[in-house]
Amino acid sequence: MIRIAVDCMGGDHGPAVTLPACAAFLARHPDAQLALVGRPEALQPLPAGLVGERCSVVPATEVVAMDDPVEVALRRKRDSSMRVAIEQVRDGLADAAVSAGNTGALMAIARYVLKTLEGIDRPAIATQIPNVTGGATTMLDLGANVDCSAEHLLQFALMGSALVAATSGRARPSVGLLNIGEEVIKGNDVIKRAGQLLREAAARGDLNFHGNVEGNDIFKGTTDIVVCDGFVGNVALKTSEGLAAMVGTLLRQEFERSLYSRAVALLALPVLQRFKRRVDHRRYNGAALLGLRGLVFKSHGAADAFAFEQALARAYDAARVRLLERVRAGIAHAAPLLRASPAGEPAAS
Amino acid sequence: MIRIAVDCMGGDHGPAVTLPACAAFLARHPDAQLALVGRPEALQPLPAGLVGERCSVVPATEVVAMDDPVEVALRRKRDSSMRVAIEQVRDGLADAAVSAGNTGALMAIARYVLKTLEGIDRPAIATQIPNVTGGATTMLDLGANVDCSAEHLLQFALMGSALVAATSGRARPSVGLLNIGEEVIKGNDVIKRAGQLLREAAARGDLNFHGNVEGNDIFKGTTDIVVCDGFVGNVALKTSEGLAAMVGTLLRQEFERSLYSRAVALLALPVLQRFKRRVDHRRYNGAALLGLRGLVFKSHGAADAFAFEQALARAYDAARVRLLERVRAGIAHAAPLLRASPAGEPAAS
Repeated sequence: MIRIAVDCMGGDHGPAVTLPACAAFLARHPDAQLALVGRPEALQPLPAGLVGERCSVVPATEVVAMDDPVEVALRRKRDSSMRVAIEQVRDGLADAAVSAGNTGALMAIARYVLKTLEGIDRPAIATQIPNVTGGATTMLDLGANVDCSAEHLLQFALMGSALVAATSGRARPSVGLLNIGEEVIKGNDVIKRAGQLLREAAARGDLNFHGNVEGNDIFKGTTDIVVCDGFVGNVALKTSEGLAAMVGTLLRQEFERSLYSRAVALLALPVLQRFKRRVDHRRYNGAALLGLRGLVFKSHGAADAFAFEQALARAYDAARVRLLERVRAGIAHAAPLLRASPAGEPAAS
Repeated sequence: MIRIAVDCMGGDHGPAVTLPACAAFLARHPDAQLALVGRPEALQPLPAGLVGERCSVVPATEVVAMDDPVEVALRRKRDSSMRVAIEQVRDGLADAAVSAGNTGALMAIARYVLKTLEGIDRPAIATQIPNVTGGATTMLDLGANVDCSAEHLLQFALMGSALVAATSGRARPSVGLLNIGEEVIKGNDVIKRAGQLLREAAARGDLNFHGNVEGNDIFKGTTDIVVCDGFVGNVALKTSEGLAAMVGTLLRQEFERSLYSRAVALLALPVLQRFKRRVDHRRYNGAALLGLRGLVFKSHGAADAFAFEQALARAYDAARVRLLERVRAGIAHAAPLLRASPAGEPAAS
């Protein structure tokens, strides 16, 4: 039995999306239980699929708004649905927590409530990005850390490797370091030193380091994992979202331009729908917050019920394969290297 | 009469691409002249369009290879076509130089031969990226500078503004600072300080600062110009290239999947071709190296003749509107602010 605590109030749509997603998730996962966290009156009436033994409502009086500053979420809203969901994990009442709320607040509360794992200075956000091979590339960090040291990048690589090994079944997933060229001499000082640390870690058998990769390798699927600082990762992800949106808009415009193109669009519908399914980022919704003493997953704030259900499934899978123990083991294996590195704050930049 | 010095040996294809592009360019620009720089025997036979008064061959005995280290290109190949083309600009024999060669070598040689403008610590690479409005977003820096200070980002913003004002005719093009959120408090220390400097510059009338933008704004066309450091810019551009390539591959695969989809593809051809034309990055080939005492443009190494011709046209347009004087004027306007800032090397990172 795996139990997930769900922040039902988070995201752009709140219970209107999270509750139907929870019902669909439960129907597909017979050994799952859900703790539905939120303001009890906002969760009524519960959909039929959420009434029964595998579901309970855990009351929380407050809600973290999408635009609440981190300090407000952390210090003033101590009974928020986001925090109560994470406390369920801390108290052993749930195996993982899922929220579509404000990312900064979620990370801050998760870090405060759960604390980081030994050997990890900063948690990171890891997500999957579909690539041309039909699989997905796992990328981290995606915005939690705007300034990173080489040591932080090594920690991200270890955590990402544990995540992919646990959830994909690949024993030794490959790690690429995001850079502006493949050669070892490329990049700024932090990146060059991170490359060196990753090579040392690979030599010790801590991970499988491929070397530097470039932005286009994310979509080529050159490596299973791409490691970068949160600033670069966030820009790469948002840039991709922007380009994908533009491609969708332009395709639509061209297929709507004339009577002829509209007729062709009807005929091409099955083809275009297959294409759309293959690039549907909703299938990959659910980013892992790694490096904490508990499993927390972040759904996109704008997720619909289908997408939010994927985030729930991702949290469920991570709990089922005991991701937390795998991450701990990965870090423990690299402990000598991590201890040798100056921890704590990164160099100014 | 505008005269462009062309490094005919550069790029993945050399004269096989550059010479036909030069011929097509001359045919379309009756008041242009070309200096064709390269190994004379490699430029024979000249296409018919390149024989005549508006064209001359300027011999250079060496060629910078695409994988030559910067030091080799700069110190050992002193008679390379790349260098001789840039020297034509330095010596007043050409109004601009264009090369499809190795970016690192081109930047190093251009900087060495031409020197930077007063008030500019480091040249930057600016390119245009098509956006959903049908126009293009000008982005800089794209790889020349992997570590930037806030002052460098201000310099990029001033140069980008001068470029867009000169070539688009918009008097006050808007500048966005690439960040991981719109709020002023977002980003690392360099970005926050750059935001402050840009606001000061805007208050002084040096430029039109919109504020922070995110990765997706590049393709939305939220601002005319997007400013970032070269590491982030390179990753964003390469990531976009990777996603665009994936979209192309998946669309092709889906339209080739079955007899039905192949038949639909034939019918959809005019629609798909219009779409393709709208996202055709070749139309935007030709990045400006800004901040030098002379105009230099960089073509994509893999450019075909159509793309290389666009780079020539871009250099021609820049010379025609006296881009160099515009950049100088923009910098001079902001001189008090630039002088007040600590110049030189950026903070370690």
